[in-house]
Amino acid sequence: MNEMNAIKSITRHVKEDSHKMADLSLEVRNIALQAIADSLQDNQKHILEANNSDMEKAKADGLPDPIIKRLSFNQHKISDVIDGIQSLIRLEDPLFHTLLKRELDKDLVLHKVTCPIGVIGVIFESRPDALVQIATLCLKSGNCSILKGGSEAFNTNRILFEIIHKACTSSGIPEGFLTLIENRSDIDALLKCHEDIDLLIPRGSNAFVQYIMEHSKIPVMGHADGVCHIYVDKDCDIEKAIRIIIDAKTQYVAACNTLESLLIHKAVAPKLLPALKKALEDKNVLIKGSPKIIDIIQCQEAETSDWETEYLDLTLSIKTVETLDEAIAHINHYGSHHTDCIITEDRKAAEKFMLLVDSAGVYQNCSTRFADGFRYGFGAEVGISTGKLHARGPVGLEGLVTYKYRLYGRGQIVEDYATGKKSFHFKEIE
Amino acid sequence: MNEMNAIKSITRHVKEDSHKMADLSLEVRNIALQAIADSLQDNQKHILEANNSDMEKAKADGLPDPIIKRLSFNQHKISDVIDGIQSLIRLEDPLFHTLLKRELDKDLVLHKVTCPIGVIGVIFESRPDALVQIATLCLKSGNCSILKGGSEAFNTNRILFEIIHKACTSSGIPEGFLTLIENRSDIDALLKCHEDIDLLIPRGSNAFVQYIMEHSKIPVMGHADGVCHIYVDKDCDIEKAIRIIIDAKTQYVAACNTLESLLIHKAVAPKLLPALKKALEDKNVLIKGSPKIIDIIQCQEAETSDWETEYLDLTLSIKTVETLDEAIAHINHYGSHHTDCIITEDRKAAEKFMLLVDSAGVYQNCSTRFADGFRYGFGAEVGISTGKLHARGPVGLEGLVTYKYRLYGRGQIVEDYATGKKSFHFKEIE
Repeated sequence: MNEMNAIKSITRHVKEDSHKMADLSLEVRNIALQAIADSLQDNQKHILEANNSDMEKAKADGLPDPIIKRLSFNQHKISDVIDGIQSLIRLEDPLFHTLLKRELDKDLVLHKVTCPIGVIGVIFESRPDALVQIATLCLKSGNCSILKGGSEAFNTNRILFEIIHKACTSSGIPEGFLTLIENRSDIDALLKCHEDIDLLIPRGSNAFVQYIMEHSKIPVMGHADGVCHIYVDKDCDIEKAIRIIIDAKTQYVAACNTLESLLIHKAVAPKLLPALKKALEDKNVLIKGSPKIIDIIQCQEAETSDWETEYLDLTLSIKTVETLDEAIAHINHYGSHHTDCIITEDRKAAEKFMLLVDSAGVYQNCSTRFADGFRYGFGAEVGISTGKLHARGPVGLEGLVTYKYRLYGRGQIVEDYATGKKSFHFKEIE
Repeated sequence: MNEMNAIKSITRHVKEDSHKMADLSLEVRNIALQAIADSLQDNQKHILEANNSDMEKAKADGLPDPIIKRLSFNQHKISDVIDGIQSLIRLEDPLFHTLLKRELDKDLVLHKVTCPIGVIGVIFESRPDALVQIATLCLKSGNCSILKGGSEAFNTNRILFEIIHKACTSSGIPEGFLTLIENRSDIDALLKCHEDIDLLIPRGSNAFVQYIMEHSKIPVMGHADGVCHIYVDKDCDIEKAIRIIIDAKTQYVAACNTLESLLIHKAVAPKLLPALKKALEDKNVLIKGSPKIIDIIQCQEAETSDWETEYLDLTLSIKTVETLDEAIAHINHYGSHHTDCIITEDRKAAEKFMLLVDSAGVYQNCSTRFADGFRYGFGAEVGISTGKLHARGPVGLEGLVTYKYRLYGRGQIVEDYATGKKSFHFKEIE
């Protein structure tokens, strides 16, 4: 209960400060971003020391290699993060954009203008670079952020937080713009602060994201699953198909945009499969096939659950389909609406696939691994959303803003319009 | 349990049909809208009969006048609804808009294109015109809708549903585009269908909207409360202020955009209050004032709970403030982020208010009652959102669409960019 009260009082304070963030000029926000970059540069030694103690503990605890790799924050990663801040400074202001300007009647003018969302809670894995990216994206978009990073990065997160917080408050940013939560047990208290937190962005395992969604009234942006498909159409370039499949499956096997299930038009299966099997096996990929796949190549038999499994591993399920329509229906039924690709030289088939597949990313002839904020040119991302409301796909600055309607009048009242004394004329301005 | 299974099987079927809606051309959707308008015209007699039996039952049950007034669907209202469909036909297509077109690298082009959300569940009050508006807005935006209307309109809703459904399926729209749920007990089953329903729009009492938010994982768009404020700044036109306050408080007292709480700068209170008291009392408005208000005029004393109460009645709470900042802080703390207005001739004060008040609508010198989709020129609205994600304020067609990223490649793989063999050049197209 005391924990709950402590967190509530923190989020209330952050909410109040979020109201002061809405009029920070781009100049002030960019000066603060530059101060962060400078201070990270100046404090490299301290950051490396803190990261070193996290790394030692992680190794002593016998954590697996991929986690240790993500946890490491060496000079190279620090300079990447500083470069990222420099790009963020150069990005256009996401705030104060006029999306609509309409004269409703003489001297009654409606403006729709972008503004910050307010308070954003982000719960993320043990990746120190993520802390810097998320904090700086939220700052550029005028939001306050409350961060809970993976506990393996405890010391690195703390020093990064201190550096960023100090650099910003010295630049005139309200102190509530960034808060670090350090105890896992505080997450449950955070989930209950729906009055003060406007958006939650959980990053991590499916089970974790599901847990967040089930235990909070706060809107959640994120992805629970990444069951991405490639469909190889009958009219395709076999070599291109194999190159793309291998990249999508093996380039980085633990990512959410990795290929998990392959659909092949029955007409192209006999020609594609033998060469594909060899290419996959060269990369140690285990194949799980439908009965018709097993008729053509030797492989393990897929079960129904395989069609909806995110392996995050060197395993690929493969199935033949009779038609493009069957492929689309399969993807809409079993997929997770993340990113799905058609390999075809037939423009009409590609258009149909793109219209009817209900996913954040619909691709033709390229790897699903392109689904990423950096690769889309957003500068950075806070996460990838498989929800359909607000932001979809990789979420950059644009997903961190909302809008207000401003209405400028000169004494107009609704009664005059209700009685017909006056009427609206709706004229777009500019 | 059987009810749950029945509703699940309905929503699953609707979801499947929603995937067929995504490529309906504007022409087909507009033809169907015209068919609805024609059929409503042709079936006026049957509609009036059905409505008559609902009206008789409502009167026999002794329902209050405002409900009976909303329930009535006479020739005048039918022709309004038909006019509404004609305007909707003329509105621009919300689908297939290209929001971004960017060359990531040679022959690798990213498009961000608007598309339907999918399946939208709308639970609304006993207003037959709402059924037609919601169904046609969802159709124009390519969405399937599942509707549950107020039970008092049972017969009217059923005939309107039959007319609309028949007109559309004859025009080539998939039959799952519109579903009518008739039992209140089915609502709970609906709330559990998060796999097949993409968005819920509940309209009705606060308690009802809160209940929906607490009992479903489906994203909810709506407003729980409408505690709207007017702040009268020191530099204001007193007559204008009174005219606006009277309109905002009394023009339609049961609406969510009605004024509930008035803040007055201390410097203007002695001059404004006596005249305002008279004007409010002429309209039978009960005043609840803070102690400083009571020093100036005779009125009932406000309690703390009054500052966050949506009266939906002829009652107004009034408080003096020392500064513009105090007014902004009060509104952000006690308000419901719906619509708030400043009355001032000082442009700088107005700008500050609009930047820092965290509401969907921020107004200068006009009635809060303007917060409405029709008055904003959206043609119609499905509701008003006080949430900050996706759509905010009155929600028209634009709030019923999302987008997809389409990526057109020619065999590109991520490995080439990861190894530095290739690099992105990010060029906006058009």
